[in-house]
Amino acid sequence: MSADPTGKGLLLKTDVIADTFRDEIVQALKSLPKPPKLVGILATSAAPSRFYAEFTKKQCESLGFDFVLKEIGAALSPENGEGDGVEEAIMEANEDDNVNGIMVYYPIFGSQQDHYLQQVVSPLKDVEGLHFAFHYNLYHNIRYIKPASLLTQPKISSAEEIPVATNDQPPPGTVKSILPCTPLAIVKCLEHAGVYNRILPYGDRAYGRVITVINRSEVVGRPLAALLANDGARVFSVDIDSIQEYTKRPSTSITTQNRFNRHHVAHPSQLSLEECLGISDVVISAVPSATYKVKTESLRQGCICLNIASEKNFEKDVRDKASIYIPSVGKVTIMMLLRNLLRLQTYKDV
Amino acid sequence: MSADPTGKGLLLKTDVIADTFRDEIVQALKSLPKPPKLVGILATSAAPSRFYAEFTKKQCESLGFDFVLKEIGAALSPENGEGDGVEEAIMEANEDDNVNGIMVYYPIFGSQQDHYLQQVVSPLKDVEGLHFAFHYNLYHNIRYIKPASLLTQPKISSAEEIPVATNDQPPPGTVKSILPCTPLAIVKCLEHAGVYNRILPYGDRAYGRVITVINRSEVVGRPLAALLANDGARVFSVDIDSIQEYTKRPSTSITTQNRFNRHHVAHPSQLSLEECLGISDVVISAVPSATYKVKTESLRQGCICLNIASEKNFEKDVRDKASIYIPSVGKVTIMMLLRNLLRLQTYKDV
Repeated sequence: MSADPTGKGLLLKTDVIADTFRDEIVQALKSLPKPPKLVGILATSAAPSRFYAEFTKKQCESLGFDFVLKEIGAALSPENGEGDGVEEAIMEANEDDNVNGIMVYYPIFGSQQDHYLQQVVSPLKDVEGLHFAFHYNLYHNIRYIKPASLLTQPKISSAEEIPVATNDQPPPGTVKSILPCTPLAIVKCLEHAGVYNRILPYGDRAYGRVITVINRSEVVGRPLAALLANDGARVFSVDIDSIQEYTKRPSTSITTQNRFNRHHVAHPSQLSLEECLGISDVVISAVPSATYKVKTESLRQGCICLNIASEKNFEKDVRDKASIYIPSVGKVTIMMLLRNLLRLQTYKDV
Repeated sequence: MSADPTGKGLLLKTDVIADTFRDEIVQALKSLPKPPKLVGILATSAAPSRFYAEFTKKQCESLGFDFVLKEIGAALSPENGEGDGVEEAIMEANEDDNVNGIMVYYPIFGSQQDHYLQQVVSPLKDVEGLHFAFHYNLYHNIRYIKPASLLTQPKISSAEEIPVATNDQPPPGTVKSILPCTPLAIVKCLEHAGVYNRILPYGDRAYGRVITVINRSEVVGRPLAALLANDGARVFSVDIDSIQEYTKRPSTSITTQNRFNRHHVAHPSQLSLEECLGISDVVISAVPSATYKVKTESLRQGCICLNIASEKNFEKDVRDKASIYIPSVGKVTIMMLLRNLLRLQTYKDV
């Protein structure tokens, strides 16, 4: 890496980040009597989903997991409809004691019906962390849980029963809540990139950072913004029709929403996207569009940029401004998924 | 009503349908020691939501319910953001033993985040029937439940534990599952309009009817299509990019999805919208667009048309073809909401 001040920023491929988790996962697998079984449910004819399913299979097999691809609907035969039988397949995998984890290749029906399906997956097998129980914990900054709480409705008091996290070890009788894979992978990349400051206390290591997250879907953008804000960052959450600021330290007279557990609050921002970008240490974009581009000229010199979309959301010259550019986090995401699978196995022991 | 074969179809206002439930509700209220308390949560500045909140209040008060409007966010002050504090308000109402029912005036953040909020409402106070637990029961044709099951994850076996419904009385130890208000109001209008055949067995009284439902959202269109198909109808579920057929009696070699409980299956239809309309006894449209219109010329002579959208989805001359046209079901919807509120009170006694 050049120290030349006129040089381009670093293009950071995430293989090296994925590799650190690969070693951890291989070690953890060795301590188990047999490898956990992950069922991938492919219900559509979409090429990217098929590709991702094959990628999962390859990764699982190279690490020693037992992966079974369950093909149904249009994935099985063009005579079937897209998504036919997917709910049934999830229910069977929920019921099957030999299945330890379930992942479903979305999108299938579109965000609303897919959201319904995400609730059908048992949280005890939800390696993707898309179940409401996990999102609720994430939004409320509930990091440690009693596994039994996943099978009951969230109770407000659950946050009070468990001591506030002061380090990354779960208090006795509790486990870490599962975090959704993609937001978690992004956090791991930001840790690697030095955005998280290790000398700050656990749970607040992004304090001092300003981060713009473009996209506010329930699958990536909003949980990511909340996760970063719960870790102390000041986050601008940008969507097509509004910009919100997420922070644990609201400066103004915002009614506190923290009665139940210390977590971020969201409120409307008066800043424009350009203004947000101009003060952001980190810019993360997840816009599913081939034409959407973050303008390099709006970026703060030396910022860190992450592209989460399958299309490239940054201009070609992004590294003229960015100190680090991460074009994709997919390889880390799959490691987080397998890490979640291993973590779910520990839920049985508590 | 004219018997003139050249005359227009009947314009059916739903006041008369609402009135039959009003009497039932007033009687049920009398038998309670005190009226249940409904909290309405208004978190936006949207005029239609404010209007609907005031309508709810008026209806509740005229019937003798205790209604409290909780205004927060932009509904309280223009200085607050749209939706600010709504999740907190729901959690407080969940916690408050004096609150018997909760309704939230949507839309707030858009369908994805609103769907998240719908899961935050305790199912024991969910008068709108929007919680996953109720949608799951609806889709799986699980009509009677043990109230305790609402507080745990859905289990496949729950359908097997409870005898199949043969009449509309819950077996001992069980209660009727809550149905979402709007789809339920539509069923009640269809019952009034003679679409349900009372000489057929309970649970199958729409058998023989062909019904087109335009819109497949998780809030109205898909639950409605499932409900009608579970009641025996052949349903075409039409969305912007596909047409599906929902039926309990699949004619072809569709893999049965009924292993767990007898319910509808959905599969792609080869018919065009025009072809669906041409064979439909009932056409229900819920497209949130001022310009979308169902073409009168495509309708089957003598069909029954229901408009669910706030805009009119049918052409002005719809009654030239339709035997009955129902322009709105809002007054029945509010009765279903109050009926759900009363029903939830019985959950405590089981």
